[in-house]
Amino acid sequence: MSENAAADDGGEIAVDFGDEGLVPAIAQDADSGEVLMLAYVSPEALARTRETGVAHYYSRSRDELWKKGDTSGHTQAVEQVRVDCDADSLLYIVEQDGGACHTGYHSCFHRTIDDTNVGERVFDPEEVYWLDVNRWVGWGRRRQANWR
Amino acid sequence: MSENAAADDGGEIAVDFGDEGLVPAIAQDADSGEVLMLAYVSPEALARTRETGVAHYYSRSRDELWKKGDTSGHTQAVEQVRVDCDADSLLYIVEQDGGACHTGYHSCFHRTIDDTNVGERVFDPEEVYWLDVNRWVGWGRRRQANWR
Repeated sequence: MSENAAADDGGEIAVDFGDEGLVPAIAQDADSGEVLMLAYVSPEALARTRETGVAHYYSRSRDELWKKGDTSGHTQAVEQVRVDCDADSLLYIVEQDGGACHTGYHSCFHRTIDDTNVGERVFDPEEVYWLDVNRWVGWGRRRQANWR
Repeated sequence: MSENAAADDGGEIAVDFGDEGLVPAIAQDADSGEVLMLAYVSPEALARTRETGVAHYYSRSRDELWKKGDTSGHTQAVEQVRVDCDADSLLYIVEQDGGACHTGYHSCFHRTIDDTNVGERVFDPEEVYWLDVNRWVGWGRRRQANWR
């Protein structure tokens, strides 16, 4: 939100990734219009998203490129990438498979600030994020994987 | 987007403003569902928003609290404030008066990344952001005010 217009490089908007090399990206459900989540995107994450048509982000906590749904299977097929007026925020218009939120809700924004639930739970995170990491020796031992 | 649950303080979600004391906030049109803009919110901006019912943000470039529409008159009546699963992003559900974007569009996200216009222009920014700062001596001299 500044007075600087975005650079326009031959029909391609040059995204301003700033000092940290990241921009916030909003994912919005293409069908319902629901705002699903906000995460961060690096130049590589944006490139992968555009190449594959599947939403990629950059995890600041894990410090790595992150394909949404890599563990859960709840991927986002990206119909369109939009850029804001200052070219420092992105909007992914997506078809969300399953739920966007690791807590099992369709949207991460499923609560009001006074903690009223306004969202819909669409999966059980304990079912989704428990991976059998020892399946070569049996089904007994499991550990909770990092959700992503 | 981490595994940390938001703190819950007696029916009020404690927003995590991080090291910089700011969180990104998405404004979404209550009627159309259109994502209008992304800006940043300080604790004071959030408090003012909740007290007044009108969207306030924090301008990083001007380093000041910012009431959206203060110059343009294009205010946002906030119907609901939502918080994401990690309590580090906000969603304002708003009734947008006029347009959200200083370029005259209803939404700041009016372009795809390949620079195709997908938005609707709803006002002429030159009309809105030119203020008569010399109206006590006449109508001749004007300067372009900072949009906000």
